[in-house]
Amino acid sequence: MKKHNFSAGPCILPQEVFEKASQAVLDFNDSGLSILEISHRSDAFVSVIEEARSLVLELLGLQNKGYQALFLHGGASMQFLMVAYNLLQKKAAYTNTGTWSSKAIKEAKMFGEVAEVASSKDKNFNYIPKDYQIPEGIDYFHCTSNNTIYGTQMKSFPKTTAPLVCDMSSDILSRTLDFSQFDLIYAGAQKNMGPAGVTVAIVKEDILGKVERQIPSMMDYKVHIDKDSMFNTPSVFAIYTSLLNLRWLKNKGGISGIEAQNDAKAKLLYTEIDRNPLFKGFAEKEDRSTMNPTFNLTEGTDKASFDKLWKEANINGINGHRSVGGYRASMYNALPLESVQTLVDVMQHFEKIS
Amino acid sequence: MKKHNFSAGPCILPQEVFEKASQAVLDFNDSGLSILEISHRSDAFVSVIEEARSLVLELLGLQNKGYQALFLHGGASMQFLMVAYNLLQKKAAYTNTGTWSSKAIKEAKMFGEVAEVASSKDKNFNYIPKDYQIPEGIDYFHCTSNNTIYGTQMKSFPKTTAPLVCDMSSDILSRTLDFSQFDLIYAGAQKNMGPAGVTVAIVKEDILGKVERQIPSMMDYKVHIDKDSMFNTPSVFAIYTSLLNLRWLKNKGGISGIEAQNDAKAKLLYTEIDRNPLFKGFAEKEDRSTMNPTFNLTEGTDKASFDKLWKEANINGINGHRSVGGYRASMYNALPLESVQTLVDVMQHFEKIS
Repeated sequence: MKKHNFSAGPCILPQEVFEKASQAVLDFNDSGLSILEISHRSDAFVSVIEEARSLVLELLGLQNKGYQALFLHGGASMQFLMVAYNLLQKKAAYTNTGTWSSKAIKEAKMFGEVAEVASSKDKNFNYIPKDYQIPEGIDYFHCTSNNTIYGTQMKSFPKTTAPLVCDMSSDILSRTLDFSQFDLIYAGAQKNMGPAGVTVAIVKEDILGKVERQIPSMMDYKVHIDKDSMFNTPSVFAIYTSLLNLRWLKNKGGISGIEAQNDAKAKLLYTEIDRNPLFKGFAEKEDRSTMNPTFNLTEGTDKASFDKLWKEANINGINGHRSVGGYRASMYNALPLESVQTLVDVMQHFEKIS
Repeated sequence: MKKHNFSAGPCILPQEVFEKASQAVLDFNDSGLSILEISHRSDAFVSVIEEARSLVLELLGLQNKGYQALFLHGGASMQFLMVAYNLLQKKAAYTNTGTWSSKAIKEAKMFGEVAEVASSKDKNFNYIPKDYQIPEGIDYFHCTSNNTIYGTQMKSFPKTTAPLVCDMSSDILSRTLDFSQFDLIYAGAQKNMGPAGVTVAIVKEDILGKVERQIPSMMDYKVHIDKDSMFNTPSVFAIYTSLLNLRWLKNKGGISGIEAQNDAKAKLLYTEIDRNPLFKGFAEKEDRSTMNPTFNLTEGTDKASFDKLWKEANINGINGHRSVGGYRASMYNALPLESVQTLVDVMQHFEKIS
């Protein structure tokens, strides 16, 4: 029996994606070969990566607007470094909204001056700073759209004349936005994109080529663009599985189709968190993430009893991150509403028996 | 019907590895979860990566000798960069034995002086240079043990007081060597280790910490060692599949067990290349790779007829790299002797009908 998987990432993907990916490991498209043993230069795989690159731009509404989609190695942590390598000549501005922002800032500081223009560290990152000033004359502005650990999410993005760079690892493809406001979007795949082991970077080409330093080949977006995202052997299986997931999303009506379901899931769980006297939300209400609701037990509530109940209900992965404690119920695109209902039922049952 | 897959990489893995990996995509160890949706911090995955790290050291005979095994992102191309970031303070020495050596040299030059102490470029890399001098006072010496494109392989390694760094991407785990002569071994997984999307680095810890530059976190071997190879989300599926492959190799008698089979396969094919008047080998005999035999048709031989024959025999992936032309029959650990016999049969049949 499948579990209700609220894991923060790597996370649930659609069951049909698991089935097709599993089949491809045995025999890819009736080729007599496993997806794991085909050449990345074969026509079969070139068509996979080209479709994936094109489809992610299509889903984001960014086709024919000067953007290139790349499937790279290394996770968002590598992007912290690549962003600075490619764009940071003198000074960049960052907001600090959690662990991942802090890490991005740390890496960027090796390449130039970093102005931390806003931070929510004063309240353990439980809100999104607003009303900050972005200085003039910066090379780019960097923000994190969704903070997986703390369960906060930027609902709007500041206007700036500098290139806008956004780490969307944990909410890419989950909600409609005007994505053309961004000049560089990156995301570790292992939430709404696909399995761990590949990272997508959506780069507006005209922001490149403006730093003076020599950039190592693997760090250089231009090198990857010129080689059609195959400068070196790509993560074949992770990219194929991402393509299966992107096709699934397109069949669901694309981002606007899934957004309606994500909103319904978020409403269901947050309503219960606010109603049920045994629970309290962690993040400020206006900044709540639709992807990663975080919540704690109220004082004096019996943690062991609640933990026993959700485990018996076949729920997986709702322990909170050590930085926050309590619980985090990650609800990525592929998590069915039924799983959220199961969690809410457990919370209500827990209230009754407490 | 399965093909005889001579692909240069990504390449054939054992059929039982494909079957177990495929099953894990549906349900990992009867957990009710796919290997693609489990947390990399879960006990289940931590035990996978720990076993993989330990088993690769065991197979190489490097346990308890000061080495750490890391499963990293980015392929050997990222290692070209990481090696220099971590070890190149002033000057390093490299041999240039092909495309990948050349790329390694190019990246290293951004970090310090690189002495190219030997090169086989004068003969399109069809041999391994010998009798060269390694200068004193270098930070490390770098070589490529097997040249996938040209089909040459180092049979022995120079003695040097400097740390010995080796790119073993295409022949790691294929032959017995005294691996303790190396201080850093790296290999893109997609040959004898596992699927594309992960890279193994075997690092002798005492060579680290000797450069003065600040090293970005993702580039720093020490950071990855301190985080047990999980500084960021690792390539979960590629590492699990690598573990399945390492277990298969151990059951085959380890490296010495597979080496006997690899030698038998190489002897079978090279004997036919030398005997059959329609073919000639590309690499110098004494430097021939057991992994990637390269060969051409002799003058006036009908290429179209030969190509038709091997395709009809269900053979895949023997077209040579564009740098060499002709043919390359990659014979990694998992390729059965039967596949090599099929190719030899085709070559002999081709001779008869020509």
